[in-house]
Amino acid sequence: MTIDGKTILYGVIGDPVFAVRSPEWFNALFERQGINAVMLPMRVAREELKAAFDGLKRIDTLRGLVITMPHKASMCALLDTLGPAARALGAVNAARRMEDGRWIGDMFDGRGCVEGLRGQGREVSGRSVFLLGTGAAGAAVSFALAEAGVSQLALHDVDAHRCESVAARIGAAFPNTQVSVEPLRPNAAYDIVINATPLGMQPDDPLPFDPAPLPETTLVVDVVTKPELTPLLIRAKQTGHRTHSGRFMHAGQAMEAARFFGFDPTG
Amino acid sequence: MTIDGKTILYGVIGDPVFAVRSPEWFNALFERQGINAVMLPMRVAREELKAAFDGLKRIDTLRGLVITMPHKASMCALLDTLGPAARALGAVNAARRMEDGRWIGDMFDGRGCVEGLRGQGREVSGRSVFLLGTGAAGAAVSFALAEAGVSQLALHDVDAHRCESVAARIGAAFPNTQVSVEPLRPNAAYDIVINATPLGMQPDDPLPFDPAPLPETTLVVDVVTKPELTPLLIRAKQTGHRTHSGRFMHAGQAMEAARFFGFDPTG
Repeated sequence: MTIDGKTILYGVIGDPVFAVRSPEWFNALFERQGINAVMLPMRVAREELKAAFDGLKRIDTLRGLVITMPHKASMCALLDTLGPAARALGAVNAARRMEDGRWIGDMFDGRGCVEGLRGQGREVSGRSVFLLGTGAAGAAVSFALAEAGVSQLALHDVDAHRCESVAARIGAAFPNTQVSVEPLRPNAAYDIVINATPLGMQPDDPLPFDPAPLPETTLVVDVVTKPELTPLLIRAKQTGHRTHSGRFMHAGQAMEAARFFGFDPTG
Repeated sequence: MTIDGKTILYGVIGDPVFAVRSPEWFNALFERQGINAVMLPMRVAREELKAAFDGLKRIDTLRGLVITMPHKASMCALLDTLGPAARALGAVNAARRMEDGRWIGDMFDGRGCVEGLRGQGREVSGRSVFLLGTGAAGAAVSFALAEAGVSQLALHDVDAHRCESVAARIGAAFPNTQVSVEPLRPNAAYDIVINATPLGMQPDDPLPFDPAPLPETTLVVDVVTKPELTPLLIRAKQTGHRTHSGRFMHAGQAMEAARFFGFDPTG
């Protein structure tokens, strides 16, 4: 990679940023395809986002941003227009300058999950899904699953109010998807069960659920990326289930964001 | 160069930036020394500087800026404190975040010229210098020459008022330097004659002066970097004079800015 006066800039904006993976992923893409562009880590504190983005917009050589915690929701108000997933979810994970100079944002976290499943040969269209955790990640994944045509979407959250709200919004946006709020333990035979809670990131976390009682055909999915092999996935392998780690969702998010920025990530 | 979440950012801010050389120079330094940092081109229009810098300050992973045209003067008002050359010249070409979060700027264009001469074994201390052009570059070089201890500094500019002003400021800052305003043609035997006008950048430019009448020991210096071999330097070689191109000044500026940012550019 050679950075010169013609290099186009992209940033990943969050706090902290030391563990973000977008720079390595995007820079490998740019290098592979001979694109004179670079993805950079930009640490911006929560209360500084507005002024920081107002400044970044003035940098003509900056064309797009990946948005990560804690800015995904607050960034929405700063953009000129939002894509459909961002409007429904009230959060963005990518924004770019349009030809007219205005900025558009959209949310690809959920589509990244669907893309990651498809990349492993796991089609979600027509399948029944049980999803735990309807925070930012869970809501995004739920939205993308409905968008991708799952037949049945069962949601659970310890925050029942939040869960009802997400279910109502998805039901309104996708009338053909059967959305329900369920108790913690899935009794029915779901094709796919997804952990979208943060449980598994900390060494002492309890399992979000025990996969043992699930039918052996059920696919157990985790959105937690670090560690890649979460206690849930370890347990699911022991109980004879197929598993799918958060790594694929992360790669899927990056591919979706790359397309949003105008690149072909498959090249 | 691998950019990851821990990469520290530096920017060169100007308009245009497509021809800036700082990214390649600094990134080679960072790579050579294994420093996880990157220098980036940031195009910012003249009227956007204040908002852009106000935003850039919020990016915690951004530690410093190289400032180029048209922002060298207007940047001064945006910084928290200025070094001595910047205060005297009313212009900066580098700024960095200090430990307390405030930003300091200073001007190394002139010191870069002196450093570039020294790097070629050409000491300026105790020498007599005739300098044409007292715009931003010429004023900075004049200041640095006085700081470096030239015995005599003769200035000329088609803008007599500007020339008088620069001479007065240098005379006040360096009482031991004999500073004078002179007509275009240097009659006395100066050790060094410097073109600090932009003449030579455009193919049809007239020579800033004819070196033919100068004593053969006179060193002819140009601050113009593109083309490296200006018509003035070509003519000076023909008339048997030693020459020194703007390339050395540019390298000297980069070395001074690197030290200002806290790096050792000789490693």
